[in-house]
Amino acid sequence: MKKITHILAFLSLLLTLPVDQAYAQRREAIVSPQVHPNGQVTFRFQAPQATQVELSAQFLKEKAPMTKDEDGVWSITTQAVDPDLYPYFFIVDGTSVTDPNNVLIFPNERFKNSLVDIQGEKPLLYSVTDVPHGKIAYRYYTSSALNDIRPLVIYTPPGYDPQGSKKYPVLYLIHGATDTHETWFKVGHVNFILDNLIAAGKAEPMIIVMPYANPGLTSAGKPNPTITNNRDYTDELIKEVIPYVEQNYPVKSDAANRAVAGFSRGGYQTLHAGLGNPDLFNYVCAFAPAVNEQRVEESFSKGIYAAPEVLNQNLKLLWLGYGIEDFLYQGALDFAKKLDELQVPYEKMYTPGGHTWMNCRIYLHEIAQKIFK
Amino acid sequence: MKKITHILAFLSLLLTLPVDQAYAQRREAIVSPQVHPNGQVTFRFQAPQATQVELSAQFLKEKAPMTKDEDGVWSITTQAVDPDLYPYFFIVDGTSVTDPNNVLIFPNERFKNSLVDIQGEKPLLYSVTDVPHGKIAYRYYTSSALNDIRPLVIYTPPGYDPQGSKKYPVLYLIHGATDTHETWFKVGHVNFILDNLIAAGKAEPMIIVMPYANPGLTSAGKPNPTITNNRDYTDELIKEVIPYVEQNYPVKSDAANRAVAGFSRGGYQTLHAGLGNPDLFNYVCAFAPAVNEQRVEESFSKGIYAAPEVLNQNLKLLWLGYGIEDFLYQGALDFAKKLDELQVPYEKMYTPGGHTWMNCRIYLHEIAQKIFK
Repeated sequence: MKKITHILAFLSLLLTLPVDQAYAQRREAIVSPQVHPNGQVTFRFQAPQATQVELSAQFLKEKAPMTKDEDGVWSITTQAVDPDLYPYFFIVDGTSVTDPNNVLIFPNERFKNSLVDIQGEKPLLYSVTDVPHGKIAYRYYTSSALNDIRPLVIYTPPGYDPQGSKKYPVLYLIHGATDTHETWFKVGHVNFILDNLIAAGKAEPMIIVMPYANPGLTSAGKPNPTITNNRDYTDELIKEVIPYVEQNYPVKSDAANRAVAGFSRGGYQTLHAGLGNPDLFNYVCAFAPAVNEQRVEESFSKGIYAAPEVLNQNLKLLWLGYGIEDFLYQGALDFAKKLDELQVPYEKMYTPGGHTWMNCRIYLHEIAQKIFK
Repeated sequence: MKKITHILAFLSLLLTLPVDQAYAQRREAIVSPQVHPNGQVTFRFQAPQATQVELSAQFLKEKAPMTKDEDGVWSITTQAVDPDLYPYFFIVDGTSVTDPNNVLIFPNERFKNSLVDIQGEKPLLYSVTDVPHGKIAYRYYTSSALNDIRPLVIYTPPGYDPQGSKKYPVLYLIHGATDTHETWFKVGHVNFILDNLIAAGKAEPMIIVMPYANPGLTSAGKPNPTITNNRDYTDELIKEVIPYVEQNYPVKSDAANRAVAGFSRGGYQTLHAGLGNPDLFNYVCAFAPAVNEQRVEESFSKGIYAAPEVLNQNLKLLWLGYGIEDFLYQGALDFAKKLDELQVPYEKMYTPGGHTWMNCRIYLHEIAQKIFK
């Protein structure tokens, strides 16, 4: 406990320097990332002992070298970048690290990226604007199946009244493989996207439930010994999450007021839960789902998905979004081809870019305007 | 956008391997930290190119060397550790990094630690237990003074009904220097501490408001150009935060139902706001506040703090908590001495250990049982 870490060193400074001087020093601490008015960004990282530091950012096609100054601070100033929220990290002599001077972190089980938010002249679809804001709540439910107390992140819209007479439709929104229940909030900016759409009259006020859809890990991030197969998430969603939500929130509980959507593995989980249970979900929206022809074929032939005529009768919307540079793009085409063969109608949106959260936000912004209408 | 990052590599794996095999592979991914049943902990970090990797953890007196295996994974297994939630990081050839395989991150502007949660046989004061759980909500208010839309993290207790007839007392709870509005939630486990106390009948159901008490940074973590002096936070708290809370939550708005508490710089901000405004706050609780004799002397002599007789008349509780190994301990003694001289009554709690969040949780657990009674 006697150990002096860097925060303690800083706090010592607070006491030994006159107060104003200490704060001046603080303001001169490393600023990273620094977004310039013209859209260029300077990234900085202090590592006097390192021999090579590079920037890997999702707006760059390849990693970029940083240069060291006399204080051991490595930096790079990029070209102007299109406004968006991008993941990035530093590679220090081969080791990937987050930006310690940035409060914005990408929640994930297997890597940690930092996030740089580049705002332009006009608000972006996820920008924090001066409109009424909904709430993001962290809730905890007891899952009998998983023998675990598990987290949910839940968005409720502006004006939400848990005891009021108004009942809300619900979107269940699932993250990608190795993401967590926090990723749609911290990276997806679900709340700001919905706040903006609702203020503009473009989306119905809805509740959005973001579960932790990796039952193979406990809420504390440890392997869950009760789980031997976490291939899909349907049972947990239907038998544990939905009942919790319907007991604790004023929601409409018919299929016409229930949607499921998800990204990547969460897109696969979405199709598994949604196309497998069209009596429960009338809206099924898959963002770059991790499917291929074989998986789709099997799902239909084994009855995991309902028969095409049942889907046609029950589904109000089956929606697919893909980036045309996504490495899963061929899977998308194969899946769409299969749906065409089976004469199951769907809508699709193909965007530039790849398997990214920049695209996820676009897809959420799109489907939020289509569901519950 | 064509860039293949490690998540993409993993997702490719999902598609090229049969599904079960991919998930088996995933379960065999690096597990870190791994807490063993006897309280020993194994930490692992993959860095094949590194020449030295060390563990810095707040349960160790000094950093400990890790050793590399043939796969380039560095590891260390510690002695058994007393149950608690500890910050730690790895030092890779001199550079401090978080644990990429751990979802638990310490929110901070200037460093990022990971957190290891070591549970024992009995629940700890902050353990997630099967009691009714309150909510943690992320809210956003518009601050005219700061020209910014700013975040608040707000705890509401089990059974909370925003439209009900019950009105709640409010604790305003402030983080330390370089922490954020999330630190009391993610590291302090405010919600679980209160859930457990309320279930045991030991604390009054209360609302706890955790602001972002660094007005020198915008909510996005950028320097706020409207702020030239962020020495204290009193104006923002009183003129912006409290009115927002009292307009949006069913709270009791008299001083007997309003408390302020904070850690480190937040402890100083607590004394500044609380002892400066005893007509607003009857409970003032400072956890290892960053004060010294000179600062206290000046605060009383310049009228920043109310006169001793006013404090004696108005305050129901002035509470100080310190770790006896805290580097701020002498400041605590000097502050207490000054209060003795001025005959201002206070309660104190001196604990083992230093300037840590392990102690913060103990202090919160203590004062939550004393306020609003």
